[in-house]
Amino acid sequence: MRFWSDNSATVAPQIMAALAEANEGAVKSYGGDAISERLGEAFSRVFEKEVTVLPVATGTAANALALALLSPSYGAICCHRESDIHLHACGAPEFYTGGAKLVPLDGPHGKLEPAAVAAAIAELPAGFVHNVQPAAISVAQATECGTVYSPDELAALAAVARKHKLGFHLDGARFANAVAGLDCSPAEITWQAGVDVLSFGATKNGAMGAEAVVCFDPALGERLGYLSKRGGHLVSKMRFLAVQLEAYLKDDLWLTNARHANAMAERLAQALADIDGAVLAHPVQANEIFVTLPEAVITQLEAEGAGFYRWAYPVPNTIRLVTSFNTEPEQVDAFIEAVKRRLQTAGS
Amino acid sequence: MRFWSDNSATVAPQIMAALAEANEGAVKSYGGDAISERLGEAFSRVFEKEVTVLPVATGTAANALALALLSPSYGAICCHRESDIHLHACGAPEFYTGGAKLVPLDGPHGKLEPAAVAAAIAELPAGFVHNVQPAAISVAQATECGTVYSPDELAALAAVARKHKLGFHLDGARFANAVAGLDCSPAEITWQAGVDVLSFGATKNGAMGAEAVVCFDPALGERLGYLSKRGGHLVSKMRFLAVQLEAYLKDDLWLTNARHANAMAERLAQALADIDGAVLAHPVQANEIFVTLPEAVITQLEAEGAGFYRWAYPVPNTIRLVTSFNTEPEQVDAFIEAVKRRLQTAGS
Amino acid sequence: MRFWSDNSATVAPQIMAALAEANEGAVKSYGGDAISERLGEAFSRVFEKEVTVLPVATGTAANALALALLSPSYGAICCHRESDIHLHACGAPEFYTGGAKLVPLDGPHGKLEPAAVAAAIAELPAGFVHNVQPAAISVAQATECGTVYSPDELAALAAVARKHKLGFHLDGARFANAVAGLDCSPAEITWQAGVDVLSFGATKNGAMGAEAVVCFDPALGERLGYLSKRGGHLVSKMRFLAVQLEAYLKDDLWLTNARHANAMAERLAQALADIDGAVLAHPVQANEIFVTLPEAVITQLEAEGAGFYRWAYPVPNTIRLVTSFNTEPEQVDAFIEAVKRRLQTAGS
Amino acid sequence: MRFWSDNSATVAPQIMAALAEANEGAVKSYGGDAISERLGEAFSRVFEKEVTVLPVATGTAANALALALLSPSYGAICCHRESDIHLHACGAPEFYTGGAKLVPLDGPHGKLEPAAVAAAIAELPAGFVHNVQPAAISVAQATECGTVYSPDELAALAAVARKHKLGFHLDGARFANAVAGLDCSPAEITWQAGVDVLSFGATKNGAMGAEAVVCFDPALGERLGYLSKRGGHLVSKMRFLAVQLEAYLKDDLWLTNARHANAMAERLAQALADIDGAVLAHPVQANEIFVTLPEAVITQLEAEGAGFYRWAYPVPNTIRLVTSFNTEPEQVDAFIEAVKRRLQTAGS
Repeated sequence: MRFWSDNSATVAPQIMAALAEANEGAVKSYGGDAISERLGEAFSRVFEKEVTVLPVATGTAANALALALLSPSYGAICCHRESDIHLHACGAPEFYTGGAKLVPLDGPHGKLEPAAVAAAIAELPAGFVHNVQPAAISVAQATECGTVYSPDELAALAAVARKHKLGFHLDGARFANAVAGLDCSPAEITWQAGVDVLSFGATKNGAMGAEAVVCFDPALGERLGYLSKRGGHLVSKMRFLAVQLEAYLKDDLWLTNARHANAMAERLAQALADIDGAVLAHPVQANEIFVTLPEAVITQLEAEGAGFYRWAYPVPNTIRLVTSFNTEPEQVDAFIEAVKRRLQTAGS
Repeated sequence: MRFWSDNSATVAPQIMAALAEANEGAVKSYGGDAISERLGEAFSRVFEKEVTVLPVATGTAANALALALLSPSYGAICCHRESDIHLHACGAPEFYTGGAKLVPLDGPHGKLEPAAVAAAIAELPAGFVHNVQPAAISVAQATECGTVYSPDELAALAAVARKHKLGFHLDGARFANAVAGLDCSPAEITWQAGVDVLSFGATKNGAMGAEAVVCFDPALGERLGYLSKRGGHLVSKMRFLAVQLEAYLKDDLWLTNARHANAMAERLAQALADIDGAVLAHPVQANEIFVTLPEAVITQLEAEGAGFYRWAYPVPNTIRLVTSFNTEPEQVDAFIEAVKRRLQTAGS
Repeated sequence: MRFWSDNSATVAPQIMAALAEANEGAVKSYGGDAISERLGEAFSRVFEKEVTVLPVATGTAANALALALLSPSYGAICCHRESDIHLHACGAPEFYTGGAKLVPLDGPHGKLEPAAVAAAIAELPAGFVHNVQPAAISVAQATECGTVYSPDELAALAAVARKHKLGFHLDGARFANAVAGLDCSPAEITWQAGVDVLSFGATKNGAMGAEAVVCFDPALGERLGYLSKRGGHLVSKMRFLAVQLEAYLKDDLWLTNARHANAMAERLAQALADIDGAVLAHPVQANEIFVTLPEAVITQLEAEGAGFYRWAYPVPNTIRLVTSFNTEPEQVDAFIEAVKRRLQTAGS
Repeated sequence: MRFWSDNSATVAPQIMAALAEANEGAVKSYGGDAISERLGEAFSRVFEKEVTVLPVATGTAANALALALLSPSYGAICCHRESDIHLHACGAPEFYTGGAKLVPLDGPHGKLEPAAVAAAIAELPAGFVHNVQPAAISVAQATECGTVYSPDELAALAAVARKHKLGFHLDGARFANAVAGLDCSPAEITWQAGVDVLSFGATKNGAMGAEAVVCFDPALGERLGYLSKRGGHLVSKMRFLAVQLEAYLKDDLWLTNARHANAMAERLAQALADIDGAVLAHPVQANEIFVTLPEAVITQLEAEGAGFYRWAYPVPNTIRLVTSFNTEPEQVDAFIEAVKRRLQTAGS
């Protein structure tokens, strides 16, 4: 019953095997090895377009570096009020951009809406030196609320971005779960929808620690190597970072893993939906479930050792449950039983 | 004959085994797991003092974060002209400190001398707002020239630091090689010699990607977590970073590995010293050898596929050879043979 | 009828005279002259406490430097949603703090309320490395809405600051107008109320370009000189900056000027309050008036050449009128007549 | 006998008069007034080219902003070891560029030589992510040693800049003295010689506090307004900054002033050259004189109240004397007499 987060999970066996296999012979460091050198091609195949790829060890780094490509120091970055880049990055985007301002916006179920973005931009007149200048829109796909943007929804945001000459960034910490949830191609919800830069996550879905900044416009990526190096993100034994991503993409492991996580979330969500006293706070479209329960029940579940975090949004008494590539149906069922049992006790 | 760098080497089998063993069960992320939680104790034992430890994935990050603890944005950091933080960090210390100035100084064989530091400080009067303010001394142990500071040499630098209220940082990317080379205790060349913060390297000596910022004064480390997180260096699946360091320290693996690398460097150095036409540029006290050879010989060795980098310092026609924890004597001997053969050809 | 801003006004004759008088003889630059050296005493007398004073040329600089004293790069600064530091500084606080996050909060009539601040702080748990750390509260006195905080209101905010170990900053771009409006002593609404640092404005109230960062705790001010210099704010011919502030304080010119501006605002406010169709958006407690008028009337007044800016807050069709130390009653009356005339026309 | 610096001098009467004259009527702030709006034209006339001009209050700000236009955060800026931007800006260029690295280079009499710059660039390979990337060359005209670059010397540096795609910046804190010294047109030693951005100084030559960033390529200047505002350098009562520059350029006041300062420097230099025991350290080509004297003589001159600063470069016992637009011949002669007298005493 450990639903703290998908990064509580282990490393997928295929990725551990790839790491072991890569551990052979002396090679050039800092990306001069064969695995690192062929990584761009693998990504280009997945995205059906030649892309620039920079592997890094954390999602915070990927997001902050991506935003540094899109925003000057005097820029404004529109994002959702619940976004990880705003709430849980300890100011990493501000650090990497040299002090840009994140503009947190409301929107249902963690999703940014074009009108809200347009309204925020209208309050920051272009060319007026007194205010920061709108520079980028950044959304998470899947969102921090476990929902996903459809290709059309992304395209509508991209249209706002284009109109105001803003960059469009996708925080794809759970990109695989979004692709799996939408059953679309990676291209459809990235460059084809107008996305400029993607933070492509693997860690939460089976890697040990591997993410990638993916630039759909090669020119955008030119500064990336320097920014990464000076951020301390150029790892020396790069083959071990690259091979995680390679194994992750190979034979669609990333989608297989994500489909399983999503299926477990669905199982959890459906069961919760049937329980009186449990209310789903958001539609469950990926691998995160937000459910509202009586305070007493939450406390008892915690005492019982169930693993989850409390969430203040959208209402108190909300808890977050995250499923992962190796969540077992038995864990889901056990949790559901625990909830039922506690609700019964509370109600009696 | 692959002597590019010690980070060209593989991961030590003991560390790979520890990674595999840690890959079991769901645990709290971001350091909330048992392995991460007990890491501080392991380091405190090794250093014979309670220390604050922050694991990160790269040495660049460790150094930049350490310096950010010691220098304000308007600070000056005295370092050697050949130091990695000055030459090969793409400005990471400047980034993390908010724009401090590195003051590169000369010194024989990559080592900073107290007089040179004192002279540099004298040119930056304290309290004079027009110049940056001396804030820290940073030296590498082992140095970028493959030499090591004795405890007394470090203490002499620390005395300058104390006199001017500067912090004292050790870049220990090859700290194990220095300890092995000096046959001293880790404490002797760190806090007992007046060091405030150490970048403790493991990657170059058998880890996959694991370094640690070690603060000998706990108060110094209070800001570290935030600076690391906002730098994008807080990894989510922390157990896999922590366990590398744990395995590295366990049963003195770090020293065993370093002793081997040093022994191979010694073997290489002694053989080169006996060859007419090969001149060692620096004393060989750890696992790096800098040797000057005729240009034609260098070119031929390159053509032959020997792995090394050219170095501009101290003179042209210098190449750097680095041995690692798993360098085989046969590689060393083969390289020596190749040098002899090429010198003979060149001379004939 | 030029009510654009109080910085549209000229320089007070007493200050122009002081500038001319200071223009005599060669003196040491960068504050080594007699006028600069005695400035601290003048401020200490005014504030009834020994204070550290740093003169700068702009209010943006004063605020950004003050906040850099109070917040680390990973800090959060609570401020009002309508605050100048958030809306009209183009990110200067972010720049000077190294990327801190401003947390804009709602509050009636431009005033921050303790409960709102406490709630914001509660969402940023101390010691949790994932979020920025609450570091400072910053309020404007007078506010950007032309209202003022009573000593008790400031003390209540200061209590929140103390409880959470935050710094407390006052943006006093219109500090004189606040003191005049409250008829209190400068000490009462600064250090006696718990304020740590004040941006003391003079430019808007008769100076040519002179503000001062005033630290009530000397220890806080130690870094100020360096931050100012590296920000490019240490002027060489400092006597001309210092003498403006000296003349400003002399014989209570600052209060005389402010009382006039406030009286003109009062005259304007009372007349507007009596006009059907004109609605005052905020209480008028200093020298700014926000009034809501029919769109047609605003357009006509603009066409007629009346000088003011439109304001989006709190509702559209709001305009801002600012009076200054040399606003003439005739201008006020002419404007009132124009409004009446236009309202009549619109209504007929 | 006050030769501390040219910024020890007063404000030129013509500029004081212009300030008084501008002090009339309410105008739009932040550059919306008529004087500010016509300033670009005045500069374009002087430089015989349409230029972008941003007035600021200090030379530190002008230089730091100019360099921020030319260098990314991971850039390297080649400058002279004696340059003000390196030695006496407390890290302002590092701050405004986001942490770029200044590369201090040697060169005779404060002048950078193309070969030294080329050698420095060669050590920072382009495209190699481990080192900062050469981004700009910055030289002072006149230099900090009182010498000037000929148009050809500048063009030779510009050729290096162009070859490596670097920006070329001129620190013109004493630009007027250089133009006067060379008897050339402003265009000849700026854009015609390949300069991209000029820090145009006025403060040291008669203004109260007024400098300008001048961009010879308008595209370069697009970010300038934002960087300036967020640096706290957009003054509200801009007319008083603009009018100083206007009066400074009017009727060639700037050149008249500079010619006088240079003539006084020449008078001082010639007299010193004739004195046994006084050695000029550098050619005197503008308004600064560096002279080496016996330590005892320097001490006695100081005791006597003569105003100058000691300089560590090129040798100890060097003092710097700076003449200004209103230095009187009598002061020069009195100083010469004092030196002679003290030398006689010392020698007797």
